[in-house]
Amino acid sequence: MDERLKRGLETVAKVNEEGSERIAKAVADLAPDFHRIIMSFAYGDINSRPGLDLKSREIATIAALTAMGNAAPQLEAHIVGGLNVGLTRDEIVEVIMQMAVYAGIPAALNGLMVARKAFAAHTPAAKKPQRG
Amino acid sequence: MDERLKRGLETVAKVNEEGSERIAKAVADLAPDFHRIIMSFAYGDINSRPGLDLKSREIATIAALTAMGNAAPQLEAHIVGGLNVGLTRDEIVEVIMQMAVYAGIPAALNGLMVARKAFAAHTPAAKKPQRG
Amino acid sequence: MDERLKRGLETVAKVNEEGSERIAKAVADLAPDFHRIIMSFAYGDINSRPGLDLKSREIATIAALTAMGNAAPQLEAHIVGGLNVGLTRDEIVEVIMQMAVYAGIPAALNGLMVARKAFAAHTPAAKKPQRG
Amino acid sequence: MDERLKRGLETVAKVNEEGSERIAKAVADLAPDFHRIIMSFAYGDINSRPGLDLKSREIATIAALTAMGNAAPQLEAHIVGGLNVGLTRDEIVEVIMQMAVYAGIPAALNGLMVARKAFAAHTPAAKKPQRG
Amino acid sequence: MDERLKRGLETVAKVNEEGSERIAKAVADLAPDFHRIIMSFAYGDINSRPGLDLKSREIATIAALTAMGNAAPQLEAHIVGGLNVGLTRDEIVEVIMQMAVYAGIPAALNGLMVARKAFAAHTPAAKKPQRG
Amino acid sequence: MDERLKRGLETVAKVNEEGSERIAKAVADLAPDFHRIIMSFAYGDINSRPGLDLKSREIATIAALTAMGNAAPQLEAHIVGGLNVGLTRDEIVEVIMQMAVYAGIPAALNGLMVARKAFAAHTPAAKKPQRG
Repeated sequence: MDERLKRGLETVAKVNEEGSERIAKAVADLAPDFHRIIMSFAYGDINSRPGLDLKSREIATIAALTAMGNAAPQLEAHIVGGLNVGLTRDEIVEVIMQMAVYAGIPAALNGLMVARKAFAAHTPAAKKPQRG
Repeated sequence: MDERLKRGLETVAKVNEEGSERIAKAVADLAPDFHRIIMSFAYGDINSRPGLDLKSREIATIAALTAMGNAAPQLEAHIVGGLNVGLTRDEIVEVIMQMAVYAGIPAALNGLMVARKAFAAHTPAAKKPQRG
Repeated sequence: MDERLKRGLETVAKVNEEGSERIAKAVADLAPDFHRIIMSFAYGDINSRPGLDLKSREIATIAALTAMGNAAPQLEAHIVGGLNVGLTRDEIVEVIMQMAVYAGIPAALNGLMVARKAFAAHTPAAKKPQRG
Repeated sequence: MDERLKRGLETVAKVNEEGSERIAKAVADLAPDFHRIIMSFAYGDINSRPGLDLKSREIATIAALTAMGNAAPQLEAHIVGGLNVGLTRDEIVEVIMQMAVYAGIPAALNGLMVARKAFAAHTPAAKKPQRG
Repeated sequence: MDERLKRGLETVAKVNEEGSERIAKAVADLAPDFHRIIMSFAYGDINSRPGLDLKSREIATIAALTAMGNAAPQLEAHIVGGLNVGLTRDEIVEVIMQMAVYAGIPAALNGLMVARKAFAAHTPAAKKPQRG
Repeated sequence: MDERLKRGLETVAKVNEEGSERIAKAVADLAPDFHRIIMSFAYGDINSRPGLDLKSREIATIAALTAMGNAAPQLEAHIVGGLNVGLTRDEIVEVIMQMAVYAGIPAALNGLMVARKAFAAHTPAAKKPQRG
């Protein structure tokens, strides 16, 4: 495993490891290289860069995916990711509501419905069984 | 002036007052109520809410406008806004680069070109003449 | 209740009161202020303005949401809204078909499928039980 | 000339004949069939249908192009088209402002800037020299 | 039946006749002319043009619909269409993965999920019962 | 230089080396790592994969960028790239016209205007001075 993929997987482990593993399984037969490629790029090249903390990065991603309005599964995964890196539910709701201003009220409403689903499914990191 | 507009104008004054005044002038003849309506909503109702600080809000807005890719003048105004509320140029560049992951490389490249323009035009708040 | 919210609720009552109440319930726990905020802006500030009748406003909204293609629940609510303010099913279908020209055939086809759902669910206003 | 193209050109003549001729010239060398194809479809098949009047159709198109935010030349042409079929400047401004609700404030602001350009360039139909 | 519709139906028969028939049924009551109009335009005017082979055309359509991210039913139909005109599953997967670069990783991941569905449903043309 | 960046730069050299160098210069001061990151991902990880030839890949990219309608500089660069890998002007025009069906007529018209610019600027690869 090269340095970049290693850094990518270490970073995604802090954000949403289950989400990453779900993607790995979902594309394993169709596109067996794709999980490695996107984790190396998204987390190895970009999200692990030191210039911005992971909380700020998840705010940016939640905002963008809410505004684009065509990526509900990824928005859900990043709302979970936001909780995992320390954003509160209220902070995430604020980010999504704010998108009403920039991308329209429907985008914000649909984002809130995704947040409800993500909040319901989220197991706080502290309660997860230890890997060992 | 109602409470909400007052709160809106006080908030936008912290983010990008010149941008707000530019909008006011640009729409004054065509749509004379529109500046008041959007400042009341965007800054009076939403961006002034206490649940999220203005730095985080500008990260969210810069991310969304970069990802949407069809709102260059507003992205420029919010990059200036981000600088005004304390984001560094490097943090803003990180947010924009990150959008390559979620909205594609063209969106990030075009966002960087807008950032260059905003950075060149920006007069640090500290150097602005006092209002008085 | 301020003037603006009152005007907003009076206006939404003409368009799609059930839709507004459904939103109120859906966001009540997550974002308890959001229904008030968006009704005040969307219907209190904008859709109640005298310069354009509600039929024309619903044509505009149905067109935009069909073209954007990422807001099916809101499109459905506004197709019901269009019927409530007096648009015929045929007029709504014409607006949606027209979007094939400006936003592509997939947007129009997906809009028609939303229209079918909205038409099936719609109870003509005249047949609704009286309040009070 | 087939029936459908004839009907298309007759319809576009009511909406924005100069705009249609500008397109014809712009694509004549690159894509010599394209003007005929799109006029036949957009105006021969769709916009000439009797189920919706041209004023309502231009409201729908102005709304959609404002909301999409990536088609300024076509939005400008249809704002001129809206004036030609009898919409007032104020009605057009209302449609564009309304898009702030559904597609975000930046889309509405950018639409208003296009409207200013279209209004400045528009020669009222009544003042045009007669064709003869 | 005019020449153009005939050419359209002959062309769509090579790409995805079942998909076309499904659309015809889905819109028959709501918009009885729409299937004829869109087949005449999409396949009679455009996709039957000799300047580009159907394999290249399906690559273009699969790429665009993946990138737009708001037209899953049509993407599914065109992935089937791509298989019908001779693209391999691997080629289609490459096109979809490539969209991660230009429209972001979520668009590519969602496109792959649509491809899985289309691949599962696809009956190779060679195995279809003969008509007639 | 790692293997992946090397493969990326070799691949982009076949598509549009001048475009790549223009990006490198444009972002050098703002985001000094970004050119390396995106070339490694876009061309090292994705576009150099053996499963799809570069002509098909440029068809896919031209289609997607035309349909998205918010990335004119990148569309221009990829139209040049398409010519460089052997697409004819007529084939590129067909791809762009086809987007009228899937993303609407404005997207196709705006894409044709970008094509005109790209065609005018393009120096056929055969006529370029040799490096060396």
